[in-house]
Amino acid sequence: MPKKNILYAQSGGVTPVINATAAAVIEEARDNRDRIGKVLAARDGIMGALEERLIDTSRLKKSEVAALNHTPGGVFGSCRYKLKSIEENRREYERLIEVFKAHNIGYFFYNGGNDSADTAWKVSQIGDKLGFHVQCIGVPKTIDNDLPVTDNCPGFGSVAKYVAVSILEASLDVMAMASSSTKVFIMEVMGRHAGWIAAAGGLACREKGDPPQIILFPEVPFDKEKFLDRVRQSVEVNGYCSIVVSEGARTPDGTFLADAGTTDAFGHKQLGGVAPVVADVVKESLGYKCHWAVSDYLQRSARHIASATDLEHARAVGKGAVDLALAGESGVMPVIKRTGNKPYRWKIESAPLSRIANREKKMPKKFISADGFGITPSCRAYLEPLIRGEAYPSYGKDGLPEYVRPDFVYVDRTLDDFEF
Amino acid sequence: MPKKNILYAQSGGVTPVINATAAAVIEEARDNRDRIGKVLAARDGIMGALEERLIDTSRLKKSEVAALNHTPGGVFGSCRYKLKSIEENRREYERLIEVFKAHNIGYFFYNGGNDSADTAWKVSQIGDKLGFHVQCIGVPKTIDNDLPVTDNCPGFGSVAKYVAVSILEASLDVMAMASSSTKVFIMEVMGRHAGWIAAAGGLACREKGDPPQIILFPEVPFDKEKFLDRVRQSVEVNGYCSIVVSEGARTPDGTFLADAGTTDAFGHKQLGGVAPVVADVVKESLGYKCHWAVSDYLQRSARHIASATDLEHARAVGKGAVDLALAGESGVMPVIKRTGNKPYRWKIESAPLSRIANREKKMPKKFISADGFGITPSCRAYLEPLIRGEAYPSYGKDGLPEYVRPDFVYVDRTLDDFEF
Repeated sequence: MPKKNILYAQSGGVTPVINATAAAVIEEARDNRDRIGKVLAARDGIMGALEERLIDTSRLKKSEVAALNHTPGGVFGSCRYKLKSIEENRREYERLIEVFKAHNIGYFFYNGGNDSADTAWKVSQIGDKLGFHVQCIGVPKTIDNDLPVTDNCPGFGSVAKYVAVSILEASLDVMAMASSSTKVFIMEVMGRHAGWIAAAGGLACREKGDPPQIILFPEVPFDKEKFLDRVRQSVEVNGYCSIVVSEGARTPDGTFLADAGTTDAFGHKQLGGVAPVVADVVKESLGYKCHWAVSDYLQRSARHIASATDLEHARAVGKGAVDLALAGESGVMPVIKRTGNKPYRWKIESAPLSRIANREKKMPKKFISADGFGITPSCRAYLEPLIRGEAYPSYGKDGLPEYVRPDFVYVDRTLDDFEF
Repeated sequence: MPKKNILYAQSGGVTPVINATAAAVIEEARDNRDRIGKVLAARDGIMGALEERLIDTSRLKKSEVAALNHTPGGVFGSCRYKLKSIEENRREYERLIEVFKAHNIGYFFYNGGNDSADTAWKVSQIGDKLGFHVQCIGVPKTIDNDLPVTDNCPGFGSVAKYVAVSILEASLDVMAMASSSTKVFIMEVMGRHAGWIAAAGGLACREKGDPPQIILFPEVPFDKEKFLDRVRQSVEVNGYCSIVVSEGARTPDGTFLADAGTTDAFGHKQLGGVAPVVADVVKESLGYKCHWAVSDYLQRSARHIASATDLEHARAVGKGAVDLALAGESGVMPVIKRTGNKPYRWKIESAPLSRIANREKKMPKKFISADGFGITPSCRAYLEPLIRGEAYPSYGKDGLPEYVRPDFVYVDRTLDDFEF
């Protein structure tokens, strides 16, 4: 049987460790060069796959591939483009198969979240219908940690570590300033639909009274009076109050707090930002001086403070994808199965994409404390192993991390242009 | 001569490494216990000194003192309280002398910026007038890097490293997303009066075209059309645009951009935040999708990514203060003198507080590129050594840095209460 190539593509928001997954795919495929051809990487995710913009990773030096392990972002480019259903846009699926045929693709690895799992699953079905069998493997990645079946999602652990470390540090700052200046610090984190990332801030609160004193979850409707009471109480008892707020925090009627209000001088609705809204509420009602931070992309690109556990997971799912491909599997995803907490143990298993596609893992109710402002011991037991260990990048003489942006060699195109 | 005690106090905004200065003071004093008594630390800076709230650092274990080297914030508490002039409020100076007398203080170390240098200088004068000689030493600290005479200020190098690393990382993120989603990323950094911190973002731009493509300095009046042209150009050429904006960026008439506009739903002026204002300008005029981050306290507490050079400086000025005290000096500050760039070399010298108090070191014009959007090679040559080296804290099994908050023992009070 002639060797088939892998087509690897990154999808959706990138993470500090998605490139480590890519590195593991490439390295594992190279270790199995007797059975697998090249790894081609789509430029800008599925869009590049459709447009036949394919990077030949066999032209990357071993050291360049290794450096992907410590480079954040998405080195091949990612995209926010969801294939429509086969019924709505069969043309895109047919085009993908055409690209697969043209470049001897036997394996399609789609590295992303729920949408990507859905796409990989659909592609696995249409291939067979069109008489071209391609093994489709979803490879998990998302800082949102909302994929079902898998214990956690590569990318999340590093963001969780960044958030926990950052709120711990900033809290030490506000603690020092509170006697005569800032009394309240607010840090906004990502997670529009689920509070996984906000919950990670709770890891900094190791003993009662420790910061953050308040976490505002998307899962808990914002109760202004109860919130203000808690802020006042923390300032009276601790001298300050440290708050983590999820971008998805919302009022009881479901409105995002971030949309609750701000307009600029021209009357335009201002772009996002729940932290300043919360700061306004505190300032107006209690008069405390506030500082606020919005970590935005900083949190999900902070490879400099990545979790070693997360990095291991990210590499393991990359290797796992190649293993599944070699085992002849299709329509599956390598997932992380937790087998113990003390000590933390885990392994890679295979799960059908049909169980993962388009489903969201919500944070369990039992992970949020009864008052709605913190995390429970069971949440801590779940989260803590995911942020363990440091996996620092190397630094150059200029004091900056040695992140790489290799010069890519593209595969020659053979097909007509594709119009979206 | 009976041994005299040191009174050490922290002042103004804290830094990732101010506690390392404190550690060096305590350690150096302990190494000279034949000549120096105890190091007492004022709780909450000068306020605690006036209120006679004094921490006895001789009760700290050696390991606790050592741990201060990697703990951010201000472990004894800081304050934003500036003593008025002697003419306006002689009472406060007299009270300080009273506290010094009561606790056998022979040396007053004030660890802060311009204001603190001024206070230390005034205290050195009033002591002699009141017949109680106390050696007053200013110890430099400020992330703003705006003290004159000293080559740089401990605290700044670590913030500079955080900013350079963070904008590099976030730029890799937006690069990956730009084909189908976010095209512009904006990171707000501190520096209300000078662009030192914003300039540090320019270190990430190692080659022409590298991010950040735009830095908005307080020193360069915001020219909206020129700015928008540059954003458009960068998106067209690079596919994206990465921007660092100083909180002090202002319009040609001197208005802070952050104040240029936003009001909340209730018509209240919104609290700060220049990044969302810049994002609005881009969105409204060019239609590009923007993401923005406000790093606020995160940048100045990020001990996890501190510069090793900065940490050395912070310790050296602490040791230098004790050395100056032992040499009988007063009204002086240990400052950093750069003696070479290739290789980077520096030493500690002594400078009179009268040359430092109430003066601000502006960023030289020659450090900003001709187009006003970047830094020059001479600026890079100045900044680069300051971010070199990594000085990681140790981490616990829970994946978090082992920052300390020791239980302090306070000195018994002997004076009446002090009313501000």
